[in-house]
Amino acid sequence: MKKNRINYTAYLDRIQSPEKASLLIKNNDVLGVSGFTKAGDSKAVLPNVAKRALSEDVKVTVLSGASLGYNTDADLAKNGALHKRMPFQADPTLRKSINSHEVLYVDQHLGQTADMLQHVDNFKIDVAIIEAVSITKDGFIIPTSSVGNSPVFADKAEKIIIEINTTFPESLEGIHDIKFLKKQPHRDIIPVLRSETRIGVPYIKIDPEKVAAIVFTEVPDSPAVISDPDEKTTAISNHILQFLEKEVDEGRLTESLLPLQAGIGKTANAILSGFVNSRFKDLTMYSEVLQDSTFELFDSGKLLFASASSITVTEECLKRIFNNFEDYKDKLLLRPQNISNAAEVISRLGVIGINTAIEFDIYGNVNSTHITGTKMMNGIGGSGDFARNGYLSIFACPSISKEGRISHIVPMVSHTDHTEHDVDILVTEQGLADIRGLAPIERAKVIIENCAHPEYKEQLMNYFTEASKLGGHTPHILEETLSWHTNLKTHGTMKIEEFAIH
Amino acid sequence: MKKNRINYTAYLDRIQSPEKASLLIKNNDVLGVSGFTKAGDSKAVLPNVAKRALSEDVKVTVLSGASLGYNTDADLAKNGALHKRMPFQADPTLRKSINSHEVLYVDQHLGQTADMLQHVDNFKIDVAIIEAVSITKDGFIIPTSSVGNSPVFADKAEKIIIEINTTFPESLEGIHDIKFLKKQPHRDIIPVLRSETRIGVPYIKIDPEKVAAIVFTEVPDSPAVISDPDEKTTAISNHILQFLEKEVDEGRLTESLLPLQAGIGKTANAILSGFVNSRFKDLTMYSEVLQDSTFELFDSGKLLFASASSITVTEECLKRIFNNFEDYKDKLLLRPQNISNAAEVISRLGVIGINTAIEFDIYGNVNSTHITGTKMMNGIGGSGDFARNGYLSIFACPSISKEGRISHIVPMVSHTDHTEHDVDILVTEQGLADIRGLAPIERAKVIIENCAHPEYKEQLMNYFTEASKLGGHTPHILEETLSWHTNLKTHGTMKIEEFAIH
Repeated sequence: MKKNRINYTAYLDRIQSPEKASLLIKNNDVLGVSGFTKAGDSKAVLPNVAKRALSEDVKVTVLSGASLGYNTDADLAKNGALHKRMPFQADPTLRKSINSHEVLYVDQHLGQTADMLQHVDNFKIDVAIIEAVSITKDGFIIPTSSVGNSPVFADKAEKIIIEINTTFPESLEGIHDIKFLKKQPHRDIIPVLRSETRIGVPYIKIDPEKVAAIVFTEVPDSPAVISDPDEKTTAISNHILQFLEKEVDEGRLTESLLPLQAGIGKTANAILSGFVNSRFKDLTMYSEVLQDSTFELFDSGKLLFASASSITVTEECLKRIFNNFEDYKDKLLLRPQNISNAAEVISRLGVIGINTAIEFDIYGNVNSTHITGTKMMNGIGGSGDFARNGYLSIFACPSISKEGRISHIVPMVSHTDHTEHDVDILVTEQGLADIRGLAPIERAKVIIENCAHPEYKEQLMNYFTEASKLGGHTPHILEETLSWHTNLKTHGTMKIEEFAIH
Repeated sequence: MKKNRINYTAYLDRIQSPEKASLLIKNNDVLGVSGFTKAGDSKAVLPNVAKRALSEDVKVTVLSGASLGYNTDADLAKNGALHKRMPFQADPTLRKSINSHEVLYVDQHLGQTADMLQHVDNFKIDVAIIEAVSITKDGFIIPTSSVGNSPVFADKAEKIIIEINTTFPESLEGIHDIKFLKKQPHRDIIPVLRSETRIGVPYIKIDPEKVAAIVFTEVPDSPAVISDPDEKTTAISNHILQFLEKEVDEGRLTESLLPLQAGIGKTANAILSGFVNSRFKDLTMYSEVLQDSTFELFDSGKLLFASASSITVTEECLKRIFNNFEDYKDKLLLRPQNISNAAEVISRLGVIGINTAIEFDIYGNVNSTHITGTKMMNGIGGSGDFARNGYLSIFACPSISKEGRISHIVPMVSHTDHTEHDVDILVTEQGLADIRGLAPIERAKVIIENCAHPEYKEQLMNYFTEASKLGGHTPHILEETLSWHTNLKTHGTMKIEEFAIH
């Protein structure tokens, strides 16, 4: 029955066990694997590569769409199977290996990996491993719950391994819209005019000759685990909704806003969920990941259409989607990530990008990747693709954490992922700062006043006041600029009164 | 005779003296003025606003294309006529006022000001002042040596003042290609497929009813002053040429490369001049400013076509252009800066962006705006538009300056304008670092080895080695990270051996 999923008979004699297929991967190979925020990743072959590394020398470079599911990244790292990893990861074990320099990590805008691969041949992709729902009669791939970078991986790879995952219903066929972007100077217009515009075909066209193995799996996507909105994330959501309502009241946006993008995780999910009980209507999304909140918005009738590169939802939500798939099928579209995250489309549509920050500073710079400037957390993901080119770039985080020992608003971010030039709105549970059209010294006042926690307002304002006495377009006391982070390391808190000698 | 330039008779009775026209500008007004890197700016009315401020309360916000010519920005600042200035400036006097907080400055990507104006009404543009070659029979404006933000200023302004500059030949008509981009969600495709694609009309369409005054000037553009290439800039140019030759040899680019963009100033000009004696051919430019080097490239037969938003050349070069205008007219095009710098077009064409830096760090972050983290120099200009969305982003600067007291390669930049995620190539007179696809700890080695001055290599490598012992994806000793900049302030040098106690 599983073989029914293969509508190209020449592939039938290439069916292998995952163990055997994994032997196609050699030491020092560069792999391009499907998978975007845990959705549609390799669950059979790649885990077997990790396993092989326990007993032999197999060290590979792994390029993916975004993060992988289950313990795949963890096992690859733990077993010493990873030389280099890009463009994203979100695994605690892998993160540790990256920070201890056992694994090299290239933290890249998710929209730009495909272009790099087309032009730069440092990464020539020895083997692509791509999860599929089924194979078309021409030998082409119908992807599963994500598209990611699979089209470019399949194009550049010497060999392709296809993993057919029978836990996905065959009815998924049709929700993908795949267009292969040619290398410059032959790059065409990407004619996406609205979230729902279809510009491609529902399969990944490949050269069947390159298919070296086909394997089957019955392991479902590892489900997203998302905690319910809490007081803080609800407050953040409300501030954003109020801000957008004001934009509508003042005639800058309509009640259907502009296409929404939201990052992954609890805060982003809570923010989107907030739209369910809002006055906004006929919303659309042009995003990279669809979380549970997207389907809440569909069910509430608020959302007309959602375009992304992956569906990453909880087990319960996935069941609901598959049981009522006909209700959703015409309302969503999965695209390659160089189209979901394309500068061209994001700027044309005027996407409203909502992403989370690790910290931001009083002048509007945002750190979304590094803990105290040195330790990688997850990576920049697609946040920069949207923040840089969208209509509005919103960044959210709590004002404090660790019982107030950490302020997420600091004098200067310890690592800059989004510069002052690319940030429009900053929001914490305390409030929201609209810094559009403001000079740095104007921004500082609004950010401290609206976003900082009361416990840190005075300390931040003191810094700003003292720094301002020194002058400069962006006032700083260079000797103290990163002292909040060093105090955290040394004294366990950023709060000066808790360790300063009075 | 001057009136012959006005082909719309209803305007004839609106001709006024610049002095009188300047009275249309009231205290607290927001002005949108033509002018991009000194080209095509207001030479009659705006200087009169500065003059008025000597004897009355006239304080205005000035939005332009980019920097203005002559002493206009200086006089506005000196006479207290400026409340806020955006999106760019390059004047020493104005800079001083910005750094002492007398003038608020918003440092913006040049490609994004028009979008901000269309959506955000904080800046509603009371008066637009636009330089023109002539007026069409429908009352529309033929711009002069730049287009800049004039189309959106004219659209948003309550009143328009037109300055007809008779020093420009009427034959300029035809080199502009103006398309007005509608606000989202009605934004269309920008169908520029090559540097030379025309998508608009050769004039700025305006509502003739809004034209409140027409003035005449006979003041030419303030000429660019560009020093000849020297040893350092020639070395930088050669490193870039060698790198691009290697790209061609290895099949990643052809000999006509991809459209070139180059920033303004001596280094950028020297880099482009270097192409004259290179093996590259049939080059094109998709840039924001055309400097003398563009015309050298035309004359040498290397350059087929150049698209930009302004022509900013030396007096001699301008004479050459006007005396042989028929030779150049079909080879160049001036566009509004939201098209010359559009993410959509830059990403589609795969522009090679070459810009200058103030400093960069061992992990690939670039500072292009702030001296020691606080003092504004010129602004980010369009560098981010190209670096973020182009095919290759190259940043150049000298490795040292002030007899070696300053190293332009530092542990951490004191202000980030271009993040590690957006930088591909770094180059100094010492050499070039190709950091594409490298992890931070790989980048550090290549950058220090290839770009740092020998006098600073050891000091940088010591920092990197010590920081690496602490671990972290991007190793830093937070306490010392900005010490190079504080040492410069305190000891007058970044060189530790010159002040450290041995």
